Amino acid sequence: MTVAQTGEFGLIERVTRRLAIPAQNGADADCLLGPGDDAAVVRAPDGRVVACTDVLVEGRHFRRDWSTATDVGHRAAAANLADIAAMGARPTALLIGFCTPRDLPVEWAEEFADGMAAEAALVGASVVGGDTVASPSLTIAVTALGDLQRREPVTRAGARPGDIVAMAGRLGWAAAGYTILSRGFRSPGALVNAFRRPEVPYAAGILAAELGATAMIDVSDGMLADVGHIAAASGVHIDLRRANFTLPRQMADSANALGVDPYEWIFTGGEDHALVATFPPDVMLGGEWAEIGVVRAGEGVTVDGTRWTRSAAGWDHFRQE
Amino acid sequence: MTVAQTGEFGLIERVTRRLAIPAQNGADADCLLGPGDDAAVVRAPDGRVVACTDVLVEGRHFRRDWSTATDVGHRAAAANLADIAAMGARPTALLIGFCTPRDLPVEWAEEFADGMAAEAALVGASVVGGDTVASPSLTIAVTALGDLQRREPVTRAGARPGDIVAMAGRLGWAAAGYTILSRGFRSPGALVNAFRRPEVPYAAGILAAELGATAMIDVSDGMLADVGHIAAASGVHIDLRRANFTLPRQMADSANALGVDPYEWIFTGGEDHALVATFPPDVMLGGEWAEIGVVRAGEGVTVDGTRWTRSAAGWDHFRQE
Repeated sequence: MTVAQTGEFGLIERVTRRLAIPAQNGADADCLLGPGDDAAVVRAPDGRVVACTDVLVEGRHFRRDWSTATDVGHRAAAANLADIAAMGARPTALLIGFCTPRDLPVEWAEEFADGMAAEAALVGASVVGGDTVASPSLTIAVTALGDLQRREPVTRAGARPGDIVAMAGRLGWAAAGYTILSRGFRSPGALVNAFRRPEVPYAAGILAAELGATAMIDVSDGMLADVGHIAAASGVHIDLRRANFTLPRQMADSANALGVDPYEWIFTGGEDHALVATFPPDVMLGGEWAEIGVVRAGEGVTVDGTRWTRSAAGWDHFRQE
Repeated sequence: MTVAQTGEFGLIERVTRRLAIPAQNGADADCLLGPGDDAAVVRAPDGRVVACTDVLVEGRHFRRDWSTATDVGHRAAAANLADIAAMGARPTALLIGFCTPRDLPVEWAEEFADGMAAEAALVGASVVGGDTVASPSLTIAVTALGDLQRREPVTRAGARPGDIVAMAGRLGWAAAGYTILSRGFRSPGALVNAFRRPEVPYAAGILAAELGATAMIDVSDGMLADVGHIAAASGVHIDLRRANFTLPRQMADSANALGVDPYEWIFTGGEDHALVATFPPDVMLGGEWAEIGVVRAGEGVTVDGTRWTRSAAGWDHFRQE
């Protein structure tokens, strides 16, 4: 059955049924009014709400023959929840703008909703609302909300010379998985699955804020590009130490087999949604946070003191690949 | 110049420049951190935030040869701000997911942003963030946030037998404008412009909540369809009185010239974003609110006691027109 056959309201009803709203299960949940009205109502106990929007387009951010609907749901949620985590906030809610061709199987939409709800549940958030429209292409716009829990937001602009740079999460895994799939292979599974479903270090975002992080970003466009955003916003130079990036065995093997420099994946691959933050030099890092570089006076990003020139740093969604 | 030529970050910079963020102009504004970071930070003084998402697809919700970019910006904002108003909340912020073909002129995106910012400014809200991606079709997902100002949200589910039904705003104007444009005409301007830019009775939403409205909805799918949503959610029957709907002269004339029943526009046309609410029978209506019917025990919606059968009530975005 296609979404054209169920109709707009039929689709909304089917998808809503899959979204377990924690509000119905306990008074602590953030969703006070879920899908089905003009708007949702979400708790914002801090008195401020953190909000971001991220869009996934079929053929650009995902392919239905490479990822299951559940995978895409996980990824659409993760891309947004990571942005909330990168502010040092706790994600509370997601909204979906679901633009779909009429011939999309209803099961795809249902399994996508399952994936979104499951990823949101990892951080105690839920899908509280959205909109569905018919569209020539499958495009999924997600908005995430979060609560700062009385902390100040960690922006990109606070890094100071002398700060240390640290990261949490994985880098290069999704890019490796993408390259493997692009070449027509399906393994190693760990790398391919990392492209399908990022493993975001959500808890590390709040931890960083508590540890006094001076700046933070989630790596969605590529390590060098995103660290460059911190450098630009803070007016500093960031130098990364290549020796601090360990190369997982599977990644080294795949890079070798494919004839690719694996550090290209690590430094310029996006979409693992690792977190990178800067901290005062006397910080005692904990949790998943590991030191990778240092903040200096100046501008731009270097690796071991040199500009990375192997390829264009990062990813511009409008350029032709 | 096209958006492909400016690139993603160039487009974001150009559009952001157009978005006057009131936070930069005064301490009262709701935007605490605007575009340019992983997420925005918006005041939510009530401790709860109202949130909704609404998507516009080119060719379905707008046409670039029928509306200017500024018009489309107004409409994209209005569709979402009206949903916030229909909860009895004060809109505070908008986020945009802007999915664009590479050949879109940059000026279109800039003027679209101008329209969104101008519509948001009508209610003191601002555009605080978003995402831009390349896409085969022009699709605009907007999320709106709002503050309840310590009032309870007015849902669709509270209408009780004996309540009166009232509306604020205009009905049928956008549908008339759409019909006129569809037939290749461009006048009367008042109707055509109503399709291009709805005039949403924003203040009436908060007033209704203050007057004790028991249920409220914004008319986006058509009067009968949306009143039907109140009836279904509340488990009541709603009877509208046709005599309470005055037929504007321009609408009567255009309907006559086009051979259309103007009440078809009024009862089934969407996208004027009028507000319809139910109130306790002893309410003293004020502002733009005018009585149009009564709530009874039972189910469904009637006009003068009869089911409206002239055409399908309302609008399902997945059905073929």
